[in-house]
Amino acid sequence: MSNLNDHLKSAAPFSETEREAVYRAIFSRRDVRSQFTERHIEEHILMRLLTAAHHAPSVGFMQPWNFIVIADRDIKGRMRTAFDRANAEAVKMFPEDRRTPYSALKLQGITEAPVNLCITCDRSRGGPVVLGRTHAPDMDLYSTVCAVQNLWLAARAEGIGVGWVSIFREADVRQVLNLPPEVIPVAYLCLGYVDVLYDMPELAVKGWGQRLPLDDLVFRDGWGLTLKK
Amino acid sequence: MSNLNDHLKSAAPFSETEREAVYRAIFSRRDVRSQFTERHIEEHILMRLLTAAHHAPSVGFMQPWNFIVIADRDIKGRMRTAFDRANAEAVKMFPEDRRTPYSALKLQGITEAPVNLCITCDRSRGGPVVLGRTHAPDMDLYSTVCAVQNLWLAARAEGIGVGWVSIFREADVRQVLNLPPEVIPVAYLCLGYVDVLYDMPELAVKGWGQRLPLDDLVFRDGWGLTLKK
Repeated sequence: MSNLNDHLKSAAPFSETEREAVYRAIFSRRDVRSQFTERHIEEHILMRLLTAAHHAPSVGFMQPWNFIVIADRDIKGRMRTAFDRANAEAVKMFPEDRRTPYSALKLQGITEAPVNLCITCDRSRGGPVVLGRTHAPDMDLYSTVCAVQNLWLAARAEGIGVGWVSIFREADVRQVLNLPPEVIPVAYLCLGYVDVLYDMPELAVKGWGQRLPLDDLVFRDGWGLTLKK
Repeated sequence: MSNLNDHLKSAAPFSETEREAVYRAIFSRRDVRSQFTERHIEEHILMRLLTAAHHAPSVGFMQPWNFIVIADRDIKGRMRTAFDRANAEAVKMFPEDRRTPYSALKLQGITEAPVNLCITCDRSRGGPVVLGRTHAPDMDLYSTVCAVQNLWLAARAEGIGVGWVSIFREADVRQVLNLPPEVIPVAYLCLGYVDVLYDMPELAVKGWGQRLPLDDLVFRDGWGLTLKK
C-alpha cells in the first residue's frame, strides 16, 4: 500500500467563476419532457456523462450501478406502451378535480429523446456484508440515486436535458429490459440536447405546485426546532 | 397563469471553463471522515448549501425534505454514542479476516465536524397521491437523495467536506432527533471546511476496494448486452 499521505491533496474552495458554474448547473437543471431536439448524442459525450455518474459516492465503495443505454426504437416503443398503461392507472388515483389538469401534463419524452438510460442497482454486488450497509440496507439504492444526480448536473453543463420517468409498473420495466431479480431499476431517464429550458420547474410554470419556503424546512438540533433569533 | 413560453429560456451548453468546474466538483468530491478543520461554517454559506439541496428534483414537486442542522455538542455526542453502538454490531457481521481492516477504518467524524446535518424525507408531504409516485412509492426517498448530492457538490465548490454516516440503528437517530413516524432520516452528514482531500476514494487509498471499470457496467438496449463493435 502506498503512503496514505501521498494521496492527500490541497482542496481549496473553487474560484468564484467555478463555484458559480456549479451553482448554475444546480439551479438551472430541469426535468425535461418536451424540449428534446433530435440532435444525436455523441458516444464520447455520453461516456463523459456515465463517467460522472460512476464517480458518485457509494456505500462501502459498492458501486452497485449499471447503465443500460437505450437507443433502439422498438425498446423505446415498448417502454412508451408501459408508461401509457401505468399512466392510465395513475390518473384514476387522483381526486376528480385534479384529473383534468393531470392529464394535460406531458410526463415523459421517451420516444422523442435520442437516448433513454436506465440506471439500476445490483443489490447483490459486494457480497452479503457491505461496509456502511449493515444497518441501512437501502444505502445501495441511495448510492445509485447519487449517480443519477451527478449525471443530471453534468448533462446540464453539456447542454443535454434529462427527464426522469417514474410512472411504470416495475414488472414492465423488468420485462422489457430483461433485469435479473436482484437488480432494481432505480431511474429511467430520457436524454437529449435542448435549446431551451424552463426558468423554473415545469410543474411550477404550469401551476401544479410551487416551491416551499426554505426557511420552513430548516430545523436546528432536532425536529421542529427553529433558530433562536 | 402566465404565458408558458415566457418561461422558456436559452439553455446552451456551459463554456469549457464552467463545464470543467462542474466535472471537477463531481470528480474531486470525497466522503470525508478525518480532514475536517475547526473553522466555523458561516450561516450564509450554510444557507447556500441548503438552497442548493432545496433545488434538487423532486417527484411531483413534492419537496419532501427537511434539514436538521446540528451544532449542539450534546446532540453530536449522543449521535456518536449511537454510531459506536451500531459499529460494534457491524464489525461482527464481517468475515473474520475482514474485521481487523474494518476496525482500522475511521468511518465518521461526528464530533470533529463543526456542523452535522440530517436530511429527512416526510413521506406524508403532498397528501396521499403524488404525481409520479403512484407506481414508485420510493421516489420521495430518491428525491431526498438528489438533495444530498446537490449539497455535497456545492460544498466541494465552497471548500467544505461532507461525510455521510450510515452506521446507526434507525431507532437511535429517531430518538435523538425526535423524528415523527412519517419522517425517514435519509442521510446523516458531517460538514466542515477541509484543507486537503484524498485524490481518490478513501476506501481505495486504504485498499478496501477499487473502482470498477466503467465499460463493464454499461449495457445497450437490455441487461447484459454490450456494444457491437
